[in-house]
Amino acid sequence: MPAQNALPDTFADWPASHARQVLEPGPVVLLTTRHEGRDNVMTLGWHQVLDFSPSRISCMVSAGNHSFAALRASGTCAINVPEADLLDTLVGIGNCSGAEVDKFARFKLAKAEAREIDVPVLPQCAAILECRLHDARMVEDYNLFILEVVRLCVRVDPAEATFVHFIGDGRFRLTGESVARRALFRPDMLGI
Amino acid sequence: MPAQNALPDTFADWPASHARQVLEPGPVVLLTTRHEGRDNVMTLGWHQVLDFSPSRISCMVSAGNHSFAALRASGTCAINVPEADLLDTLVGIGNCSGAEVDKFARFKLAKAEAREIDVPVLPQCAAILECRLHDARMVEDYNLFILEVVRLCVRVDPAEATFVHFIGDGRFRLTGESVARRALFRPDMLGI
Repeated sequence: MPAQNALPDTFADWPASHARQVLEPGPVVLLTTRHEGRDNVMTLGWHQVLDFSPSRISCMVSAGNHSFAALRASGTCAINVPEADLLDTLVGIGNCSGAEVDKFARFKLAKAEAREIDVPVLPQCAAILECRLHDARMVEDYNLFILEVVRLCVRVDPAEATFVHFIGDGRFRLTGESVARRALFRPDMLGI
Repeated sequence: MPAQNALPDTFADWPASHARQVLEPGPVVLLTTRHEGRDNVMTLGWHQVLDFSPSRISCMVSAGNHSFAALRASGTCAINVPEADLLDTLVGIGNCSGAEVDKFARFKLAKAEAREIDVPVLPQCAAILECRLHDARMVEDYNLFILEVVRLCVRVDPAEATFVHFIGDGRFRLTGESVARRALFRPDMLGI
């Protein structure tokens, strides 16, 4: 029996080393945190992959955000990757502050519980990365958090998902056509 | 009169602070370097934006790449952002080594000269970011270079470009539909 309020079984566990399949295409994501009993969610576009195994990523969370203090203090967060059906939601979340509103209530966000960390996750999203803060050395100078992905759950394969990509000035591009070039790859570059 | 072998005037200079418009959507890019008279180019997918002004980005260049040593030693590189017409080229470049082939010759890459740094750039690409190495503290542990964008040149607006997004295992998604949500943004979040 799944734990109370665990992710629904429409999500499959993928190896954490496959986090690049979700993050490398560059989607806008929703970062969730929990600190001192308070849940928060923010919209985030500045992230990258750093390594496969251990699975590491980095993200820049501006010090002005409520989530900055929560992430630094708790050392945990989840990265929830929405599809385009949540476009207005992610824009709305990106344009208000957890200091003023309960964003989960305002944007009618369903919540589930992460498994490896004590953080809420968003089952309306296509993929969820549970993360632990691995290295905070760059936080002071760049607000840059180096995270280890400790669990990856996927509901919609990135080969079929319609992610949202931000191009600034209130404008977006959605993920489009799928193309494969497997025959042009060295065999050791495939599979991940 | 433009400098010898400068970028053609189909490129416009944009403020370096607008680098996010090109990089944040998550395109696969081509990184060019020059060191000890030798030019090189590699395919790169692991990068992110760090700040608007000064315009800063980070990118992970694996220590196994020829470009790693060139970037570290020269302290300069260019990030060239191709459209989907160069898909086979960027896959080919990502699957061979500068140790074995002259990739510029093999892939028939046109070359121009950067303006602010001594690095070749690729005028077949949609946008070009000339970069200086700003902080190498994370290179030892993560192969992560923090760069300052000292010039941004754009030939195809990201609102209209068809970038290439990698989802692993030899598969890609192309940039799709354009959508705007400017009315949902706070005024101070627009314009950049």
